[in-house]
Amino acid sequence: MKAIANDIALAAQARQSQLTKPLGSLGRLEDIAIWFAGRTAQSIPKRLQPAICIFAADHGVAIEGVSAFPAEVTAQMVVNFMHGGAAISVLARENQASLNVIDVGVKHDYPNPINSQGKLFRSPVCAGTANLRVTAAMTEAQCQKAWQIGAGSALHAIENGKNLLIGGEMGIANTTAAAALICALTDHAADEIVGLGTGIELAARQHKIQVVNDALARAKAAGAHSPLDWLREVGGLEIAALAGYYTAAAEAGIPILLDGFITTAAALVAVKAKPEVADWLLASHVSQEQGHRAALAALNLTPLLDLGLRLGEGSGAALALPLLQSALTLHREMATFTEAGVAAGAM
Amino acid sequence: MKAIANDIALAAQARQSQLTKPLGSLGRLEDIAIWFAGRTAQSIPKRLQPAICIFAADHGVAIEGVSAFPAEVTAQMVVNFMHGGAAISVLARENQASLNVIDVGVKHDYPNPINSQGKLFRSPVCAGTANLRVTAAMTEAQCQKAWQIGAGSALHAIENGKNLLIGGEMGIANTTAAAALICALTDHAADEIVGLGTGIELAARQHKIQVVNDALARAKAAGAHSPLDWLREVGGLEIAALAGYYTAAAEAGIPILLDGFITTAAALVAVKAKPEVADWLLASHVSQEQGHRAALAALNLTPLLDLGLRLGEGSGAALALPLLQSALTLHREMATFTEAGVAAGAM
Repeated sequence: MKAIANDIALAAQARQSQLTKPLGSLGRLEDIAIWFAGRTAQSIPKRLQPAICIFAADHGVAIEGVSAFPAEVTAQMVVNFMHGGAAISVLARENQASLNVIDVGVKHDYPNPINSQGKLFRSPVCAGTANLRVTAAMTEAQCQKAWQIGAGSALHAIENGKNLLIGGEMGIANTTAAAALICALTDHAADEIVGLGTGIELAARQHKIQVVNDALARAKAAGAHSPLDWLREVGGLEIAALAGYYTAAAEAGIPILLDGFITTAAALVAVKAKPEVADWLLASHVSQEQGHRAALAALNLTPLLDLGLRLGEGSGAALALPLLQSALTLHREMATFTEAGVAAGAM
Repeated sequence: MKAIANDIALAAQARQSQLTKPLGSLGRLEDIAIWFAGRTAQSIPKRLQPAICIFAADHGVAIEGVSAFPAEVTAQMVVNFMHGGAAISVLARENQASLNVIDVGVKHDYPNPINSQGKLFRSPVCAGTANLRVTAAMTEAQCQKAWQIGAGSALHAIENGKNLLIGGEMGIANTTAAAALICALTDHAADEIVGLGTGIELAARQHKIQVVNDALARAKAAGAHSPLDWLREVGGLEIAALAGYYTAAAEAGIPILLDGFITTAAALVAVKAKPEVADWLLASHVSQEQGHRAALAALNLTPLLDLGLRLGEGSGAALALPLLQSALTLHREMATFTEAGVAAGAM
């Protein structure tokens, strides 16, 4: 694991104190510049070249009626990503990030011919997970394979010069899996973590809590103990891929920008399995999904945005990209007091 | 005053419900798209062409030692804006906004020859305000002239095709004037509104509170009653220009994106003088300056960002621009459920 370059972070902090502004007046933007300096070992970090990888998979637990959308929507949305009509398609274009979609286990057929433009990678591990309420979501081999696909996607992006990795996801019913994982890996009860997902009614949420509690009890009885046990028992193929993606990025020393509830659950698995991964994570936003704030807190992360988003796909992370670029461009391009002939303050 | 096109806002709301995402899942971005639809009378609003106008002026009250920076810094920073080294220079470039600087009353000489690239407008009303602690900051004629310069800047930007106006400011000691104005126009005491500005010590803040209280008592004794009375008595030339700028934008039916503490004080003057101006305001961020949250609340505005900024110059507004552009691009470019062949949810 690459170490954080603390000396270079200190050099970046010194530079911030020389730029033509009251010290600290750019708030979290100053912190971001210093954070990237330490991670990139560049006192003036280069422009971000962000990659978004969306992992898509189906969930057996969808049969329990835990989502407001039918399971077929997973495949339909993959097509929408490819055709450029989904929110993340728009945001990737608008905020200059590359976008790849990786099918790690979509069960349903793609309804149309896809003009994939080389951006859809079809590597399904299996046709979705099993119903985590009644059995392990994945076998060990399936879970490992999904993890490796995610890790490979990270390495592929890094080899292509990307220096900031964003993970996104698509998988009808995946807030149920993510909630179960967050409960298993933190001290929170299902009632504190389970939310409305894509927009279920309050009565359906009670049922979803029951499903999560049943899954947790079943997995515990089956001997789940390690983060990877829990991932296999109550996770999802796209969540396993995301955990592998984040771990590989951190091992390569590449910063990660988290999105919402699902990606944070995956990051929690990665960090519980390998605590140093935490050093490479930034939180883009806190979503409206009930348990997201608690999951971020478990990772000691403070989100940049709080805009009532609850879409997933990587959309919140894509939206926060310009803040990161602005923080780094300010750090790079602002004049110092000496350069500008401006008198420094009495601070 | 142009009316808000409520029917077109409703059409935009209907479109939001047809885009391929759970209803409401884009949170405040959906509200923003609908807000612009009503203001622009376009159910699918065009891309924003933002203009930033920075108004700069000096403050006689600087002699009271209320700032961490010497008064000469106002002129020095104008030069820095022109040379492209200030935070707002960087953010305007990064986030594709035009940038003009209007000197409405800078007292100090410009220390260097300025390569103004046609972006500095020198129209000083006078060499800074008088010391508002002991006398009216401006005469009625000065205040009106500054207001008119601001209004003219707005009209100039609009004639050049700009469809979103951002105001910024530079003026050493202007948090003292802004705090006094906010106290006068809301029910808040100086202790609730006065902050640390560019970074004064806590003891200096106590002195600054005293200066504000003295100014408020003096102006009240002098018969200050209307918002324009208070502007003239305890405001500043750049604050008067900003109030004129915002009023002219609202009268022309052009949306306004507020920045921080000073610009919000100016907006408060504009709204108290003409309540309909409020319909055209969006708040970009809540700053770390103590009284900003209360001033935004007095305008019923909810900020988009909360990043601990306290720089002014228009920097927080420039930073929020990509969020607005993303909100409108999502509204414009996302596929509908029908277009994408995606099943709508059960909501």
